[in-house]
Amino acid sequence: MATITIIGAGMMGSALAFPARENGNTVRLVGTHLDNEIIDSCRGINRHPKLEKDFPIGVDFYYIDRLDGLLEDTDFIICGVSSFGVDWFKDKILPKVGGIPVLSVTKGMFGLNDGSLMTYPEYFLKEYNSLNINAVGGGCTSYELVAHDPTIVTYCGGDIKTLKEIKSAMQTDYYNITLSTDMRGVECAVALKNAYALGVTLAVGANERINGLGEKQHYNSQAALFMQSTKEMRNLVKYFGGKADSFDTGIGDLFVTVFGGRTRLLGTLLGRGLSIDDAMKELDGVTLESKVITERLYTALNIQFKKGVLKREDFPLLCHLGGLMFENGRGEIPWKSFEREEY
Amino acid sequence: MATITIIGAGMMGSALAFPARENGNTVRLVGTHLDNEIIDSCRGINRHPKLEKDFPIGVDFYYIDRLDGLLEDTDFIICGVSSFGVDWFKDKILPKVGGIPVLSVTKGMFGLNDGSLMTYPEYFLKEYNSLNINAVGGGCTSYELVAHDPTIVTYCGGDIKTLKEIKSAMQTDYYNITLSTDMRGVECAVALKNAYALGVTLAVGANERINGLGEKQHYNSQAALFMQSTKEMRNLVKYFGGKADSFDTGIGDLFVTVFGGRTRLLGTLLGRGLSIDDAMKELDGVTLESKVITERLYTALNIQFKKGVLKREDFPLLCHLGGLMFENGRGEIPWKSFEREEY
Repeated sequence: MATITIIGAGMMGSALAFPARENGNTVRLVGTHLDNEIIDSCRGINRHPKLEKDFPIGVDFYYIDRLDGLLEDTDFIICGVSSFGVDWFKDKILPKVGGIPVLSVTKGMFGLNDGSLMTYPEYFLKEYNSLNINAVGGGCTSYELVAHDPTIVTYCGGDIKTLKEIKSAMQTDYYNITLSTDMRGVECAVALKNAYALGVTLAVGANERINGLGEKQHYNSQAALFMQSTKEMRNLVKYFGGKADSFDTGIGDLFVTVFGGRTRLLGTLLGRGLSIDDAMKELDGVTLESKVITERLYTALNIQFKKGVLKREDFPLLCHLGGLMFENGRGEIPWKSFEREEY
Repeated sequence: MATITIIGAGMMGSALAFPARENGNTVRLVGTHLDNEIIDSCRGINRHPKLEKDFPIGVDFYYIDRLDGLLEDTDFIICGVSSFGVDWFKDKILPKVGGIPVLSVTKGMFGLNDGSLMTYPEYFLKEYNSLNINAVGGGCTSYELVAHDPTIVTYCGGDIKTLKEIKSAMQTDYYNITLSTDMRGVECAVALKNAYALGVTLAVGANERINGLGEKQHYNSQAALFMQSTKEMRNLVKYFGGKADSFDTGIGDLFVTVFGGRTRLLGTLLGRGLSIDDAMKELDGVTLESKVITERLYTALNIQFKKGVLKREDFPLLCHLGGLMFENGRGEIPWKSFEREEY
């Protein structure tokens, strides 16, 4: 049995307490400074306010000010903050972790001025290169993890022994875990999926715009955009130096992201013809990882296009999404740009 | 403008009359000997009995006995028969086509005794190697093609000039066409998708079995099986010598196949725990391409496993499906077999 400290009481951080605790581990869910109300709820009714199921008996809930004492006997840390908490985690938590392995669920990349992109684990390691940073990717939504819907995720990191230990503590009959040392590939692939899920769900909104809000879903156009996303993601994972198996993990993650949550809603609104500004108003300005990663990818790729490293015509869907983000456009889906003359 | 003769008045053959005729081509839809009732309906009310929209004005409908006269001025033929009509088309039609290009929409492969597999275009060309055989793959259901839902398909064949001519006649603003000379790769990929769509939809039935028939869909498990399908299809397309871009076409086709039709229904019934025999009874014994291709693939791959050319452990999902087909099993989805220890 392990002692696991989860930092960040968002939906995914909280959901991971389920398999962790069901396996008999000691599990502490520690809210960030923004999570105090969530921790109050967890303590009061043993349930996260946005999840539909009580926590397993025995999860302990803490405010962030108690963290230092908890780290003393922690076997590994799960970083459950969102993209918007990455710098907080790096600056406030990483200096304290020492030799304790970290498993990060946060997805995304930062773009550098030269057009290169860095995954979040690389961002952590750049500043603290002696730490034992690991990450998780794959098609797994928090509410279905809680519901015990079976899935397969990939745990990745530099040290296979650490990965095996974390897997041993976390795996259940419904939470299946592949291990990979291709951390950059996995984390690129699963970051890309947030942008491309916007791309696929444009078709949901376009269908509503053309055929009316009550129209049944049409899958031809979603399938075509899924195909185009597959093509662009495959090329990007390869460009980032990732393995083909890591791309597969991204595709599973893309599939699940197309079918749920706010990314689908934003893609649908854009597909209906709303500008990004109007769509964000509909979403009450909620912060969205898919918007951030699309902007960062588009910015970085434009630099690579100018350098001649990548070709704009190989990424028409990402370029279309970038145009929607930055030019406040309301463009039609550029179908003809996805055709290829001959291959 | 071209003169196009479609042979086979099933849903997909009939649906292709829409873009063909909307472009102003002369379009003849010719039923096979099994399609007489469909042709009667088309002539009577200008609509296919299973499609929800009238044909564009000006499509002409014929019984098969009129074919010889129609071929005289035909620019290209569309072969719209199902898998179960492939031998009929080869034996009765191909001897008559001479230099007229053929575009085949029929998907599938035959397994040979040595464990190799042959796509339908290869099967045609093996017997008639001088013919101009081309094919179409990609995510495109007939009822949504008729509804003008935008999509991208791939036309493939040995001669790019022919492909360009056929594309020129068929393309519309909603029916977008990529061209490829990798016919084997495209046709393998889109044949595989019928087997793997069964694999993904096992999760739909498993969810119903575990949580009850009224339960909302769970996407984690579908996503995990989609990921596993991506992995196995990617490896198989590569093994068949196909290009990565052809694999993309198969993934688009897989996506759309997961969301409609009898393949989804069969996968769902198997996922609920029915044996293949009981599932086929529920389906009134209807002939299913997905069942046939799964059986052929599994048989061929088993020979390759024995030869040591491919490894059984790289194809756990296909092997599970093969077991369901041949051993009348009711097995649980073998989740742990999808995990990888390290890559």
